[in-house]
Amino acid sequence: MATRNASIVAPHGYAAAGIACGIKRSGRPDLSVIVADRPAAAAGVFTTNTVKAAPVTLGAERLGAHGDRIRGILTVSGVANALTGVEGLDDNRRLLVAAERTLALPPDSLLPACTGVIGPRIPLDRALAGLGPLAAGLGSTVAAADRAAAAILTTDTTPKVARRTLRLADGRRCTVGGIAKGSGMIAPRLGPLHATTLAFLTTDAPATPPGLARLLAAEVDRTLNMVSVDGDTSTNDTVYVLANGAAGGRSADDDPAFQAAVGAVLEDLARAIARDGEGATKLLTVTVEGARSVDDARAASRAVVGSTLVKAAIFGADPNVGRIACALGYSGARIDPARIDVVLERPGAPVPLLVDGRPAPGLDNGAGAKVRRILQRLDEIPLTVRLHQGSATARAWGCDLSYAYVQINAAYRT
Amino acid sequence: MATRNASIVAPHGYAAAGIACGIKRSGRPDLSVIVADRPAAAAGVFTTNTVKAAPVTLGAERLGAHGDRIRGILTVSGVANALTGVEGLDDNRRLLVAAERTLALPPDSLLPACTGVIGPRIPLDRALAGLGPLAAGLGSTVAAADRAAAAILTTDTTPKVARRTLRLADGRRCTVGGIAKGSGMIAPRLGPLHATTLAFLTTDAPATPPGLARLLAAEVDRTLNMVSVDGDTSTNDTVYVLANGAAGGRSADDDPAFQAAVGAVLEDLARAIARDGEGATKLLTVTVEGARSVDDARAASRAVVGSTLVKAAIFGADPNVGRIACALGYSGARIDPARIDVVLERPGAPVPLLVDGRPAPGLDNGAGAKVRRILQRLDEIPLTVRLHQGSATARAWGCDLSYAYVQINAAYRT
Repeated sequence: MATRNASIVAPHGYAAAGIACGIKRSGRPDLSVIVADRPAAAAGVFTTNTVKAAPVTLGAERLGAHGDRIRGILTVSGVANALTGVEGLDDNRRLLVAAERTLALPPDSLLPACTGVIGPRIPLDRALAGLGPLAAGLGSTVAAADRAAAAILTTDTTPKVARRTLRLADGRRCTVGGIAKGSGMIAPRLGPLHATTLAFLTTDAPATPPGLARLLAAEVDRTLNMVSVDGDTSTNDTVYVLANGAAGGRSADDDPAFQAAVGAVLEDLARAIARDGEGATKLLTVTVEGARSVDDARAASRAVVGSTLVKAAIFGADPNVGRIACALGYSGARIDPARIDVVLERPGAPVPLLVDGRPAPGLDNGAGAKVRRILQRLDEIPLTVRLHQGSATARAWGCDLSYAYVQINAAYRT
Repeated sequence: MATRNASIVAPHGYAAAGIACGIKRSGRPDLSVIVADRPAAAAGVFTTNTVKAAPVTLGAERLGAHGDRIRGILTVSGVANALTGVEGLDDNRRLLVAAERTLALPPDSLLPACTGVIGPRIPLDRALAGLGPLAAGLGSTVAAADRAAAAILTTDTTPKVARRTLRLADGRRCTVGGIAKGSGMIAPRLGPLHATTLAFLTTDAPATPPGLARLLAAEVDRTLNMVSVDGDTSTNDTVYVLANGAAGGRSADDDPAFQAAVGAVLEDLARAIARDGEGATKLLTVTVEGARSVDDARAASRAVVGSTLVKAAIFGADPNVGRIACALGYSGARIDPARIDVVLERPGAPVPLLVDGRPAPGLDNGAGAKVRRILQRLDEIPLTVRLHQGSATARAWGCDLSYAYVQINAAYRT
């Protein structure tokens, strides 16, 4: 069945669409919708930035009041609808009301999201005029899901999609699908009821809103919150999950297989966001082992992927392990500088970079040139950091810092 | 008198020298010394990075044991002497002992500093062979001070020097001089006894080690600790101040004029470091007013100068006030997004960018092009952020993010 290869329409009971309505000057798709065929349990996590975009405020409100009967997600890309005051809230409400009417959905059943330039209001005339074509495009095909995934992007070079099928404890088969956008202003720190990382998950598993909320918060902490492209936490980060229960049976809230599938979809999306970081040429994966606590392991791995100097060194294929140690040192994690090991996990042939807190022998001369060639060839740089302080582990995802990053962000609005 | 125009030899009783001894492959100056003509009271602040270079450990030790009779500062540039274990400590001790002998100074009277690549050990043969020429070059002339200032640099494009003369409460005239290096791995967070920002101050004012330590910590918090080039806190940041008392009279520890002069020299050096950030084309100065607390004001101003996206926008002369608001939002400072004003302090004609939390009228079209032209022309971008939450203020210094930053750091060791 064709939809089994799709993302957000892979679970039973979902349709999606994406179109260009002229919000983006480029003419690229900018209006996207996901629709559930019946009321779905929903949960969300949002940016912890104090400056919140209008859709973040509205989305949290709607989840609080109607989280047990959500019917979909409407996303505008091209404008963030942030710093837009009461007019911004009103614009987004009007757009949701009109979309619910056009799509024949009950009031207050759509969740909003926006991403793009901060400051300008939504060009409401164009967005409203786009609703008819958007509704007409709704479908449960791979092509429709791909259009929805494309229409939430901004500077992304590629859509991010993921999917897992699983068997619940009662033997029923169900699916979790997801789409995301990332690229810039990426250092999500999502909290319960507070998201320009956008990630939307759909599932036909049965669930309750509080169960979904717990599961989502835990899995986002371990995945999307461990991605850093530029260290800037957006005004618009939003993650939603919809569970329409089309698979039947009892709530899967506490089902380990369900939790694992949601986690796996979020992890795929996290990796895809890091790999497609603005200007990125290489994916950087840092696994910290042997930390005193999970918080320490997360702080340490985040510091390394977040270090501007490490990122520039990776772009230059420079095995500059000093910068890695430096980042570990200011991460706040409890470390013993004399007991840190760092390994480049080249497939099949790991390369030690730091041994007992000292650069691996020869790294500054002969061996350095060899490692440089290895770094040049790899498009994913997997590093393992061993702290020897305990047994906690964590992984963070990032990317290198290239000329293109500067070009993209110096000229973003020109 | 010629030395009155100098930096670290402007106060009475100091000599300086800088030479190239071959540590840097480029042949640039890499060995620098400042010598006081009598035992000086000294204080220092060092990096808070857990991974500390050998000279940081040694410098803190020596200040603790001999802070009342320091005779000078010996700096190696080109290697950081970090991640070098016990061998690194031993190398640096041997270099200090040899330098003290060559310069006819008492044991344990020199403070060490290093800056450069993390990992390699000091090429001790070259450094030791350089001590004779270094001693021969000692002088109290502007030229000698300039050579000392040049020899502590790494990727800096220009030396950083500053000087203030003042009159103490008892009428005596004295001087505070300073040199610094900065450029990359710059986000100093210096703490008492914990430094690759290097800054060295000399004064002929009389002072005590604890008085100097208090004064230095307070003024560094307000100045060097408010500079961000790339957000990476180095393993080597070190600030030293020497007070040889050559001006005579009682301790100036609590003299407001002395405190102001030390603060002014540190502020000049902080600005100079930010302006010469790696690849920088523009100096960014962010003054936050109306914060609830000084900590809030510092967090808010640091977040704006530290934002990769703000830095890239400034490079592109893009008045992207959304990114400024976004940084304020994640800074941790207490803010009301609807009450933030941001002004570009164009000399003589301030330009409002954000008014009551909304982009200034027209900024996204006609007015935007005008502001863009203003930003293009200015080589210093002074922004004032008004939070309307209280009366606390702070200022932070940073720079734009250019292609050259990436080039410098991707190829640092090639």
